Amino acid sequence: MNSKTVEIITIGDEILIGQIVDTNSAWMAQELNKAGFEVFQITSVHDEASHITHALDEALRRTDIVLITGGIGPTNDDITKKTLCQYFHTKLVFDPSVLENIKQVFANRLDFVFNDLTYSQAMVPENCTIIQNRVGTAPITWFEQEGKVVVSMPGVPYEMQEAMRNEIIPRLQTKFQTQKILHKTVQVFGYSESALAIKIADWEKELPDFIHLAYLPNYGIVKLRLTGTSDNLLSLEFAINQQIESLKQILGKAIIAFEDLPMEQIVGNLLAAQGKTIAIAESCTGGNIAHRFTSHAGSSEYFKGGVVAYANEVKTDVLQVTPEDLEKFGAVSQQVVEQMAKGALQLLRTDTAIATSGIAGPSGGTPDKPVGTVWIAVCIKEKMISRLFHFGNTREQIIQRTTQAALVMLKEIL
Amino acid sequence: MNSKTVEIITIGDEILIGQIVDTNSAWMAQELNKAGFEVFQITSVHDEASHITHALDEALRRTDIVLITGGIGPTNDDITKKTLCQYFHTKLVFDPSVLENIKQVFANRLDFVFNDLTYSQAMVPENCTIIQNRVGTAPITWFEQEGKVVVSMPGVPYEMQEAMRNEIIPRLQTKFQTQKILHKTVQVFGYSESALAIKIADWEKELPDFIHLAYLPNYGIVKLRLTGTSDNLLSLEFAINQQIESLKQILGKAIIAFEDLPMEQIVGNLLAAQGKTIAIAESCTGGNIAHRFTSHAGSSEYFKGGVVAYANEVKTDVLQVTPEDLEKFGAVSQQVVEQMAKGALQLLRTDTAIATSGIAGPSGGTPDKPVGTVWIAVCIKEKMISRLFHFGNTREQIIQRTTQAALVMLKEIL
Repeated sequence: MNSKTVEIITIGDEILIGQIVDTNSAWMAQELNKAGFEVFQITSVHDEASHITHALDEALRRTDIVLITGGIGPTNDDITKKTLCQYFHTKLVFDPSVLENIKQVFANRLDFVFNDLTYSQAMVPENCTIIQNRVGTAPITWFEQEGKVVVSMPGVPYEMQEAMRNEIIPRLQTKFQTQKILHKTVQVFGYSESALAIKIADWEKELPDFIHLAYLPNYGIVKLRLTGTSDNLLSLEFAINQQIESLKQILGKAIIAFEDLPMEQIVGNLLAAQGKTIAIAESCTGGNIAHRFTSHAGSSEYFKGGVVAYANEVKTDVLQVTPEDLEKFGAVSQQVVEQMAKGALQLLRTDTAIATSGIAGPSGGTPDKPVGTVWIAVCIKEKMISRLFHFGNTREQIIQRTTQAALVMLKEIL
Repeated sequence: MNSKTVEIITIGDEILIGQIVDTNSAWMAQELNKAGFEVFQITSVHDEASHITHALDEALRRTDIVLITGGIGPTNDDITKKTLCQYFHTKLVFDPSVLENIKQVFANRLDFVFNDLTYSQAMVPENCTIIQNRVGTAPITWFEQEGKVVVSMPGVPYEMQEAMRNEIIPRLQTKFQTQKILHKTVQVFGYSESALAIKIADWEKELPDFIHLAYLPNYGIVKLRLTGTSDNLLSLEFAINQQIESLKQILGKAIIAFEDLPMEQIVGNLLAAQGKTIAIAESCTGGNIAHRFTSHAGSSEYFKGGVVAYANEVKTDVLQVTPEDLEKFGAVSQQVVEQMAKGALQLLRTDTAIATSGIAGPSGGTPDKPVGTVWIAVCIKEKMISRLFHFGNTREQIIQRTTQAALVMLKEIL
């Protein structure tokens, strides 16, 4: 793939001490990919001049476009602007348009006070293009040298995003002829990453050079992402779809989705489309399935609620599991998990329900029901599916894999 | 503190196309900081041999310790192991102990099948130390050359975390640590990071050189971590405790904990100690509070369960909120959230209960109840506290900050 490459340099101690997670770079990479640019490397460095300079030298050796985030706040520990001045052998000059822009940005912000720090934002490098920050005080600076571009922008996510979307990416596209990039993802259930790799080995060998395959395992689901590059988006899409068609022949029902969305959103969209509602009865997942559904805006359209039935009394008192069956078969059993699902369906008066019961460990395992033993049931009014699984080792792993499997089973039944 | 510096190299196209956010590096940086190491640079590179080699060269020029995550899965796009073999001029040899470990890891996983790729995981570089992966298939490889250390570990978060905590950090400390390190953390509620920084500015200025302060904000709670280095652990502990005493004078009740544990564990331990049980009635948090409790082993001792009452019918049908009050005051009101708490307490027959109701957005806000408006109630048999909050902008932020505040309120009442 020979699309134009970009490097991202994020500046700030807070990333290097682990105080904040660098979500900016992932967002930028996604937007750049869509626009036909490829991120070659992401480098996080300290608020320290020589460190920044060295990273910039290195990056410009490898690529023509370097995007820098962070370190341009008004406080003293932010030194990116001064450092870039030295790097490009220029000096800071006062730019009234920046001050004017700041006045506009904060026109309706009664709490905003102008001070020396505000004015210092209007001091900008002389030989660069100034791009106004429409939502903050620090301007974006665009340097060009020997056909290469270095852009310095704020690290504040919404300020960076506004500048990238409306100014930086469009300008990069104008300056650099870029190829089209297309991603398509299929989600596969029931294979480990390695088992899947063997299953599709021959198909993978035959992939054309302009299509790249990536395996992205996620708690029992493996995403296969096909990425293609070409000047012709239509023929590229055709070629990728062809590959996906032959993948279907190999994997059949194991392919559970052709969209790159989390399972709860895929089944959520299905529920919404079918006008169905759902209730969750969770024992070993302890609320995680409900949490996954409700993390997404609009889930109230189909998600009515759930019962976290951790203690056995809750299974009997609230979900009407019969004490006899609980006694006879144990909490982690087909009988109990099916009664939990039916109980939730009736109690919350929904069209569908999911129930989980398993041994999340580390204790509670027995020879015949070791840690990781999980029963899952899904039902829609008259139909019920239940299945026994044996999941992983760690508590986290068992909770997440149970959640994924339950969502996949729900998709099957819908 | 003149602590040993580390560089992190994360390998994987998925980070560079923005498909996943690199949360590993932040986690590692935090743990390394606690252990007395400083991260100098984080570099994300492609699954590409020359790129990995170059990054490794660069990193080893700057530091003695390089930690590499990712790119050691069994599939073809994972090439880190081969690349490190070339880099350290060695070859792959079969290590039966790795295969033995994999058998143990997957002992409870009936769905796990051994195949060539599994065996390929047991092919390891000859001249390195093998650290077994206790929760996955890919072993950790530890290389040493001219007193410098390069460690390659999986990118799967829980596999990386298990290895870092139990093997890598202890070994790094043995090899490089000279001075003793001590951490004490106080958790502060009700201050933004910057407001807190102003409040304790004078105290912070007076901190001795051998005590380092870190602000760790986490959805409404700010952890203040004091890290001291010294040859004398006793006098160090005394000095840090003195600082915490004077911090108490400044912050008083705003200090909600002196342990570095998540709030759900702190209140969980309190509940266990008092022999009390808890039930959760969640609207806007949608199961997240239950999920937080049940993520921890042993939570079944005090956590009986909960009701996720997303739809209003669930509030009335299951939690016995009176339809009249729901109609009159709305779902996000003191009356309703208190009835939810009482309802959960009675339904699940527990000693304590938490209830949340709020507008998580992005839609659903009104002029008098904008997005971010949240009511929280906690009750223990005869006592009830409820409070109104106005939380953040994003859905994630509102859910997490509500969860934290609810746990803090529970701690107050216990």
